[in-house]
Amino acid sequence: MTTDSRPHVDVPQPAFLFDLDGTLVDSVYQHVTAWQEALAECGVPLSVWRIHRRIGMSGGLFLNALQRETGHELDTETLERLFSLHAEHYLRRIGGVVPLPGATELLSYLQDHEVPFAIATSGSRVTASPAIELLDLPPDTVVVTRDLVERAKPDPHLFLAAASLLKVDPRQSFVVGDSVWDLLAAQRAGSMGVGLLSGGYGRAELQAAGAYRVYADPADMLDHLEEVGVRPAT
Amino acid sequence: MTTDSRPHVDVPQPAFLFDLDGTLVDSVYQHVTAWQEALAECGVPLSVWRIHRRIGMSGGLFLNALQRETGHELDTETLERLFSLHAEHYLRRIGGVVPLPGATELLSYLQDHEVPFAIATSGSRVTASPAIELLDLPPDTVVVTRDLVERAKPDPHLFLAAASLLKVDPRQSFVVGDSVWDLLAAQRAGSMGVGLLSGGYGRAELQAAGAYRVYADPADMLDHLEEVGVRPAT
Repeated sequence: MTTDSRPHVDVPQPAFLFDLDGTLVDSVYQHVTAWQEALAECGVPLSVWRIHRRIGMSGGLFLNALQRETGHELDTETLERLFSLHAEHYLRRIGGVVPLPGATELLSYLQDHEVPFAIATSGSRVTASPAIELLDLPPDTVVVTRDLVERAKPDPHLFLAAASLLKVDPRQSFVVGDSVWDLLAAQRAGSMGVGLLSGGYGRAELQAAGAYRVYADPADMLDHLEEVGVRPAT
Repeated sequence: MTTDSRPHVDVPQPAFLFDLDGTLVDSVYQHVTAWQEALAECGVPLSVWRIHRRIGMSGGLFLNALQRETGHELDTETLERLFSLHAEHYLRRIGGVVPLPGATELLSYLQDHEVPFAIATSGSRVTASPAIELLDLPPDTVVVTRDLVERAKPDPHLFLAAASLLKVDPRQSFVVGDSVWDLLAAQRAGSMGVGLLSGGYGRAELQAAGAYRVYADPADMLDHLEEVGVRPAT
């Protein structure tokens, strides 16, 4: 067989669409505790694990699910108060939030090798901005927050918007996230999902939600980049 | 076949050996955050999920595992300081700790029906006592804390000591816990394990650690007591 008769295969460099909380920064427990405090102040005492299982969903869907589970109905005024109390309690804890091991190294590596990436978070700009600042990213990094799209995870809008701003095909992208909601949204977007254990979910849950691969945290993903289409550091 | 020729079968009423944190009280996140603060003050910054995955182990084993994972070696003085800082930070948060849904109802039901039960926790008396007070138990309730046995979970000592004090056979007992360490210790003790999701672990992890059955929380267990050998409320 001559070189000319080789079948033509075109596989573009995959892009990476990252979730933020629990994926790049160690902030899930601060969010969980802030929601618990906000809910308790609004008369909805709730076990912490039930909040943790919903973190990463859109705030609206999260509160819908909680209303269904607890039987508490919340009016619009209470819902607005909950969002604002959550942001207030979370920002009070922001000093305890740090990048996850390997997060800045992984993003630097992608930059140095011109691999496109973006951040897409169900959080609002007000809670996401101080966490993103910890990652020391170039100012032109594509960041999509909840306020910029119609629906959040597990709907695919956040990841589709990020792919669109990056000018990449979502079907040639990996969504990287710590929660089942990221991985379900990845499927809806036609992307492949990479799960990280660093948000506190179990490996089996992430696999059951369709993860192509599961790593411990960004450092572990950086050590295995060849598994997701990037030539690793040598 | 006459009644007299029936085979003789002797199945005693099972006893219940309960873990405390994440099983009867909603305190796992307070413990996790207290450990993270204590470790950071001793120069060992650690991702929160790695601490969460170890909660429920003996403090000593927990710190051994962390030293192995992080490569930090801790001297005896630092280890003692860590235990005391953890207790201090946890007790500062004790006001946020509440019984899990159904915990007091489940224990009352067992009392009313004369089903033997005990509490066996890897925590020390100083951190366990205020949490146990929330459960409104009779003063003669059997409670085994870390200080009373040679080794904690996943070694079986805590549950074996609890069974011995109750004067029940551990092989006729259910260990009820939220963590894989409870369920592994249950196997070592020859008991059956019941997993609860209320500590934040996933169902698959608890099943993989040998759970006979997994419930959401104590309220869900109370609704399914016939599955663990207790005649349910009618």
